[in-house]
Amino acid sequence: MRNIKLTFAYDGTRYAGWQSQPNGRSIQQTIESAIRKITGRRTHVTASGRTDAGVHAKAQVANFRTKSSIPPDNLRMALNTALPRDIVIKRAEEAGPDFNARKCARSKTYRYTIANESFVDPFVRHFAAKCFHRLDISKMRRASKYLVGRRDFRSFKTVDGKKKCSVRTIRRIAIAKKGSMVYIDIEADGFLYNMARAIAGVLVEAGRGKIAPETVRDILKGRDRRHCGPTMPARGLCLIKVGY
Amino acid sequence: MRNIKLTFAYDGTRYAGWQSQPNGRSIQQTIESAIRKITGRRTHVTASGRTDAGVHAKAQVANFRTKSSIPPDNLRMALNTALPRDIVIKRAEEAGPDFNARKCARSKTYRYTIANESFVDPFVRHFAAKCFHRLDISKMRRASKYLVGRRDFRSFKTVDGKKKCSVRTIRRIAIAKKGSMVYIDIEADGFLYNMARAIAGVLVEAGRGKIAPETVRDILKGRDRRHCGPTMPARGLCLIKVGY
Repeated sequence: MRNIKLTFAYDGTRYAGWQSQPNGRSIQQTIESAIRKITGRRTHVTASGRTDAGVHAKAQVANFRTKSSIPPDNLRMALNTALPRDIVIKRAEEAGPDFNARKCARSKTYRYTIANESFVDPFVRHFAAKCFHRLDISKMRRASKYLVGRRDFRSFKTVDGKKKCSVRTIRRIAIAKKGSMVYIDIEADGFLYNMARAIAGVLVEAGRGKIAPETVRDILKGRDRRHCGPTMPARGLCLIKVGY
Repeated sequence: MRNIKLTFAYDGTRYAGWQSQPNGRSIQQTIESAIRKITGRRTHVTASGRTDAGVHAKAQVANFRTKSSIPPDNLRMALNTALPRDIVIKRAEEAGPDFNARKCARSKTYRYTIANESFVDPFVRHFAAKCFHRLDISKMRRASKYLVGRRDFRSFKTVDGKKKCSVRTIRRIAIAKKGSMVYIDIEADGFLYNMARAIAGVLVEAGRGKIAPETVRDILKGRDRRHCGPTMPARGLCLIKVGY
């Protein structure tokens, strides 16, 4: 059995997220059905991790096993022809037998995009959240410093009752402004459920002056999601890199 | 009566073009109905020119007359709230009584965007045409030189049987490449029907080596649209500037 690694982009607007589910179309189902069309076999595709409904990816990574002998680049072309235009396979390559897109992932980088204006440019409206209030980038950067490192991010996940470990390491948060667009890049060894959107929410609160940058330290200490700011909408979030 | 000048952007994907028509929703109808909602009166909105079905604008300009006393910026906000998210008013300002967005327009700049790859990035798929063949930018630039100046562009308009004057002045054609994206900016005192898309088509033919750059001179001389290349799809075209 060959093990094929795929790197792909998607516009998540029309999808119920990565994971297959009974209601609503998922990215996973769509890719699995394209593979079945090309290879003639049902296959399970493993991604580096789930993305929620409406979340996008510039470079999601997944792998699947197949007996097909189609060369990787032909496979890429055939899959792209079979896939709808909002999912595009950027690379297909042979991976070693032990490669598992989820288990082998060592880091992920998410970008959160904010249109800092009263009305969002129509060309980016599916890929940016709106913030009407003027954002102070230096305050956002100061707030972000408290989040970098190995921390318990329990305050930054959606309350779901589960008692799993909530310690993660954020390696880097970079905040950039270009015109009226603000980009928050967060690189971590892993993300809890809704963590990236909750971090974006807190940084926006700091940027618009609703909380002091130092408050982020207290939110982390409180380890309680209810003290956290609003979870930002899915459409602003994009998985831009998976490190192996 | 006040005369209000609007500068606005739209994603033309869902529209049957600028001009109001019995079948299909137009940008004009959508803006006129938003103005009516805000001011309580039916109004005719005059744009710098029509854009075809599926064509976009970053900065289309239009004007309309109103007795309403709403200050321009409040009008902008109210219109944006009333408009769907794919049309955004960027500026609303008072214009002199003689300002007419169509008659006073002295130049227009269109950008044609081409994704020079086999499968278009999902994030730009509504705003770029695809060209699978590798484009040689220097050949495109050489070909474009023959089009700059005061010329009879009859060969670059869709055959429609009308005998109107087809002389226009192209002031500038700039071709840029960024990653796999190719941008063709064309500034002219005016454009014939489908002229921008026909020019993009000829430049693509030159870029992929299907015609020699010098052939453009012959196409112009022939003054016959049938010798011209394919008209490129509407989704790659965007009105980026109107000069007054």
